[in-house]
Amino acid sequence: MWLHRSLTLKPAPRGFHLITREVMAALPELAEVQTGLLHVFIQHTSASLTLSENASPDVRRDFERYFNHAVPDGWENFEHTLEGDDDMAAHIKASVLGASVMLPVQGGRLALGTWQGLYLCEHRDRGGPRRLVLTLTGE
Amino acid sequence: MWLHRSLTLKPAPRGFHLITREVMAALPELAEVQTGLLHVFIQHTSASLTLSENASPDVRRDFERYFNHAVPDGWENFEHTLEGDDDMAAHIKASVLGASVMLPVQGGRLALGTWQGLYLCEHRDRGGPRRLVLTLTGE
Amino acid sequence: MWLHRSLTLKPAPRGFHLITREVMAALPELAEVQTGLLHVFIQHTSASLTLSENASPDVRRDFERYFNHAVPDGWENFEHTLEGDDDMAAHIKASVLGASVMLPVQGGRLALGTWQGLYLCEHRDRGGPRRLVLTLTGE
Repeated sequence: MWLHRSLTLKPAPRGFHLITREVMAALPELAEVQTGLLHVFIQHTSASLTLSENASPDVRRDFERYFNHAVPDGWENFEHTLEGDDDMAAHIKASVLGASVMLPVQGGRLALGTWQGLYLCEHRDRGGPRRLVLTLTGE
Repeated sequence: MWLHRSLTLKPAPRGFHLITREVMAALPELAEVQTGLLHVFIQHTSASLTLSENASPDVRRDFERYFNHAVPDGWENFEHTLEGDDDMAAHIKASVLGASVMLPVQGGRLALGTWQGLYLCEHRDRGGPRRLVLTLTGE
Repeated sequence: MWLHRSLTLKPAPRGFHLITREVMAALPELAEVQTGLLHVFIQHTSASLTLSENASPDVRRDFERYFNHAVPDGWENFEHTLEGDDDMAAHIKASVLGASVMLPVQGGRLALGTWQGLYLCEHRDRGGPRRLVLTLTGE
């Protein structure tokens, strides 16, 4: 079984945002998969996807603080500066965190741990809508 | 062909640990797959999985040193501190390294490079047992 | 449908290099896949793969500058130094960026965003040829 679906997320503020429910709501067919995999892919290079703690909003704020410190906007050695101070830093953060996550599916549900949630990581000040490609396969 | 298996790793000390053999031992069915993929997923947000050098224990110790430096326990700007100094740092390290690896399978074996091994990255001082979900697909 | 292919990239200078076209040229069968996934895997622990901006060469140069700063060659706390100043740093960069990317396939083409390209990240001064394993599955 193969299923492809596009999902456009509305513009989100710069930062880390839980999107597990939104992605699952776009895929009712997940309930029919006994064993499989769900690939969630973002078609951008200045936003990314990761899995982390799904309960405390302060965790998401700490992600934003940490990555702004580790990859500073407008770092003095950046050469690619035409698109704004946040652009090159966004590309690097996006590669460190990754453009996709692969999630196991078992018994019609995502086989996530209790505390795992899917984050949209918006690295730009004004990132705009973000397109995801969902690919579900299994039996 | 689809196969799902859970595997619980016994508690490991904070640090980086080779688990290639343990994961392969849990999947004797790998020998029957001519071409396929093995997804190894960790159901936690303060431990992670990565591939790196499988021979020298000093490489694993250097990973631990480097990541402790790059993401310090109890960093002064962290807001999420209730669960201990190592908790928020563990969430960030886990997202940087990732919750899963996908490995090619060819001719009944993992198609890894000579020096590639699978690491459990335990980011907490007392992480406890860690649950993996293995998903094998192929023909 | 399952397809396995090996692809050896000729030696590249240390840095970040666009290889989207080279990988696609090795997989003419992609045109036959309506919905699927392409796994691109590198069989090494001192080079890696990532997706990022495919237009401006200065973005690739900034990646190299940033990662050399974040993970310095010959960092004073590294214990694994026998294979050269660039070796241990290369292992860490490779784990941060990752040994594989998974790309959605739709309508016979990679479903990448307009600006997304596949990078070979060569972290060693003299990395030599690099072996990729391509696994294509779909219907």
